[in-house]
Amino acid sequence: MLTDELTLTDHHCHGVVPADLDRPGFEQLLSEGPSGTFDSTIGLAVRRWCAPALDLPPHVGADAYLSHRAELGWRETAVRLLRATGTTSWFLDTGYGGGTADFGALTDGEVREIVRIEQVAEQVIAEVGAGRKVFEQIEARLRARARDAVGLKTIVAYRCGLDFPLRDRPPRAVLPERRLADPDLLGWLVCLGARIGAEYGLPLQFHTGFGDTDLRLHRADPLLLTDFLRNTADTGLTVMLLHCWPFHRNAAYLAHAFAHVRMDVGLTVPYVGHRAQAVLAEVLELAPFRSLCYSSDGYGLPELHYLGALWWRRGLGRLLDEWIADDVITTTDAERLAAGIAHSNAEAAYPSTPAR
Amino acid sequence: MLTDELTLTDHHCHGVVPADLDRPGFEQLLSEGPSGTFDSTIGLAVRRWCAPALDLPPHVGADAYLSHRAELGWRETAVRLLRATGTTSWFLDTGYGGGTADFGALTDGEVREIVRIEQVAEQVIAEVGAGRKVFEQIEARLRARARDAVGLKTIVAYRCGLDFPLRDRPPRAVLPERRLADPDLLGWLVCLGARIGAEYGLPLQFHTGFGDTDLRLHRADPLLLTDFLRNTADTGLTVMLLHCWPFHRNAAYLAHAFAHVRMDVGLTVPYVGHRAQAVLAEVLELAPFRSLCYSSDGYGLPELHYLGALWWRRGLGRLLDEWIADDVITTTDAERLAAGIAHSNAEAAYPSTPAR
Amino acid sequence: MLTDELTLTDHHCHGVVPADLDRPGFEQLLSEGPSGTFDSTIGLAVRRWCAPALDLPPHVGADAYLSHRAELGWRETAVRLLRATGTTSWFLDTGYGGGTADFGALTDGEVREIVRIEQVAEQVIAEVGAGRKVFEQIEARLRARARDAVGLKTIVAYRCGLDFPLRDRPPRAVLPERRLADPDLLGWLVCLGARIGAEYGLPLQFHTGFGDTDLRLHRADPLLLTDFLRNTADTGLTVMLLHCWPFHRNAAYLAHAFAHVRMDVGLTVPYVGHRAQAVLAEVLELAPFRSLCYSSDGYGLPELHYLGALWWRRGLGRLLDEWIADDVITTTDAERLAAGIAHSNAEAAYPSTPAR
Repeated sequence: MLTDELTLTDHHCHGVVPADLDRPGFEQLLSEGPSGTFDSTIGLAVRRWCAPALDLPPHVGADAYLSHRAELGWRETAVRLLRATGTTSWFLDTGYGGGTADFGALTDGEVREIVRIEQVAEQVIAEVGAGRKVFEQIEARLRARARDAVGLKTIVAYRCGLDFPLRDRPPRAVLPERRLADPDLLGWLVCLGARIGAEYGLPLQFHTGFGDTDLRLHRADPLLLTDFLRNTADTGLTVMLLHCWPFHRNAAYLAHAFAHVRMDVGLTVPYVGHRAQAVLAEVLELAPFRSLCYSSDGYGLPELHYLGALWWRRGLGRLLDEWIADDVITTTDAERLAAGIAHSNAEAAYPSTPAR
Repeated sequence: MLTDELTLTDHHCHGVVPADLDRPGFEQLLSEGPSGTFDSTIGLAVRRWCAPALDLPPHVGADAYLSHRAELGWRETAVRLLRATGTTSWFLDTGYGGGTADFGALTDGEVREIVRIEQVAEQVIAEVGAGRKVFEQIEARLRARARDAVGLKTIVAYRCGLDFPLRDRPPRAVLPERRLADPDLLGWLVCLGARIGAEYGLPLQFHTGFGDTDLRLHRADPLLLTDFLRNTADTGLTVMLLHCWPFHRNAAYLAHAFAHVRMDVGLTVPYVGHRAQAVLAEVLELAPFRSLCYSSDGYGLPELHYLGALWWRRGLGRLLDEWIADDVITTTDAERLAAGIAHSNAEAAYPSTPAR
Repeated sequence: MLTDELTLTDHHCHGVVPADLDRPGFEQLLSEGPSGTFDSTIGLAVRRWCAPALDLPPHVGADAYLSHRAELGWRETAVRLLRATGTTSWFLDTGYGGGTADFGALTDGEVREIVRIEQVAEQVIAEVGAGRKVFEQIEARLRARARDAVGLKTIVAYRCGLDFPLRDRPPRAVLPERRLADPDLLGWLVCLGARIGAEYGLPLQFHTGFGDTDLRLHRADPLLLTDFLRNTADTGLTVMLLHCWPFHRNAAYLAHAFAHVRMDVGLTVPYVGHRAQAVLAEVLELAPFRSLCYSSDGYGLPELHYLGALWWRRGLGRLLDEWIADDVITTTDAERLAAGIAHSNAEAAYPSTPAR
């Protein structure tokens, strides 16, 4: 397929658990919920595809897979699976799952940092307390972190939903909460992130769509960002909608309507597996080709990074093969489309060197 | 197909109309709205599939179908179509469409009762009035009914939507309404049903997704149950999301995120007919295989029970054949998956004998 | 395909820009947002399909396409593409994109007017001011316009969303706004449009689903019309849900549940191109066949009218070919279904002559 040889920029992923895992521990990480299972589409894919990547027969049983994985050890497993993705550049959300140094030790690609703004704010509040100067200090810390980063990320979808209030000024006081949940504070923080992102040329990534049980999924519909997108349309900011399923058609509409919106179906692709082609087809109904970026959103298990890359290649590759066979697109155009999603669109949207 | 020989547990259905029907009467029951029509996907399916099951040629005209059906009589029609489903166990929602004895006379499978909690509450209120003791009496009646039941059912989606308030205590007073609509009362009733369900080991079924015009469909999105699901996650309750279309991907997410959630696409499958395969494919993107149960949600016309079974077999069978051909799954795993949905998952979730 | 020879009634479209366009101007009209692009599904379709309709090779480059188009001139381009649609009757929304005379000069089909009620109200307010008599004058003007029209149209989805308040009486005062946005005024206006539509036998068209950035798409979900539809179910009004994507399954439910609801996937079909078949398949899961009408919603570029017709023919034609091959439907029934959407359903719903 024409996606086979493309190098990937994984513009949003996380680190892996640096430990060997028993079956409950492994299965928990095969899910966004508390109790994953091999009896699922992603479980089938681990057995079908990760097994041969680790020199086991396809469709090997779950216990045999885990036993062989334990023999290899988590590190060797990670090294093999991460390298097999064909990724040359990883943008790591360091807010969850470890830092760039640990991840860089497992792969030979470039590793750059995505800074999670809620985590920075929570760290500053924990350090300096909730006094009046905390807002200045959050901004100063965000600016300092931004100088070395490739992008910013917000999980406001988890905290109060994507219809957060648009706030140019901070609230009067910070509530004494370790986990930020005050909508006014979050609204100010996201708008601050948008300003810093525009100033430093850093895209602002939004968690949208499905995630763990800390989420109210109906509050994570990217359409709820419409007012925020209108406000930021002419500021120079690039907005990245992550994951998106089951609202990926909605996200595609936003990418169509707003020139500064980009999107991916990371997280979605490794989970839906052989359905990646169908999901990508729905996205491509309306999303401009320049607006799509590749990511795995791999977290915890390097199997997720591997399956993200594998199903993206297979899903998009098969889809484009069908389009070519049906005379929808020329091979040349299809190759350009695929290369755009694989890495070019991310290269155009993210800074090639740190702002520092 | 590998679904051909599976016996079915229809974990949610209703009785049939014990009368012969003219064309307007029949067509009305071919729809969730007031005016069904043969000129629809389900109408095509009746002519294509129910006709030969009643010894008529496929695609027979609507009037010829109904005339032959009238000659057979409603009872013989029902007996033939219900038996042809291959269902060995029927869980009947007796809140709408008649009781277990009537239905049992038409089929040789086991028939067990699903108790609709709103109907029980309305009966108690009608009997004892709206005094302060009515809440105790509702609870007592629900417990009595639960002892013989296989599960509970709520139609709160129809009454105030799935974002009902979570209430541990009843409201101060019962409003004098024959059709319960007070959100506080309904919220208390559903939470009571959840407690009794957990205590007796009875799953609590929720109407979600499409239904008749009494529904505001956007209030029936199962995602609106998120807070309820968090509250019941560790109580031992099993929650069954019924129907789900067009929110079946949302339901699949909930089944993925919450270990106590199960779902079906009953009602959906007989209506969408040859599209059952596509809908099931969307569900299986994220729903764990253990979380899916078969139901027809047949109501009124035994044609619905028959088409529910037929299109479930064809839809899932074809889907799994494609997966096998594409090396997504082994035949052994596919057979286990199909048997789980056909009956095993329901057998694991519902009590095998009454609590009494 | 069995759709090849059908004549079309395009029951909702707009005029074309009467000017030659440079590449930015053309690309802007290839999008509902401010910055369209050839690098999109619709851009591929222009190069693949409009090019040969203008005697260029398929997949010609964008600049070559535009240069040839400029040589032909906008008028000759429009005449060729509009005639190639096979449309014999055009219902033109004159609220945006020019009037019936200009459009009629470009095509030999019949051109009739759809009156946009918000525009009429805004014109009256601009003329007579915001005095107490303005409401009577709006009604009088609407009635006058209705006499020559084939239908009415509302864009309340853009102004306050489809959950507008149902108002039998006008508000106390008109706010001094050139662009109506007061929900009470809009609610009254839509209900007035519904009454006039019922009285004159004119369907009332609703913008639903995606559109330009003036829209909050989540407020344009047709399900938000549920209360309005209940209120108008027995009044004789026909309600037309336009566009619908990505809520086309929701619209199909409404067409199933309410006998006076019709729908189309205009705008959607030219944009999603080769995915039209998939979208139509989703619609036909539940929508009665009588409820579907063809439209292009072409606006600005005659390429949109042309692609609307072309992808409708190809999408539905291929879908029905698959159904026939799979024995879902007979060829006779498929032909009737296709003719219904092509023109018969619109002919049944709209008046054949003006009310005047």
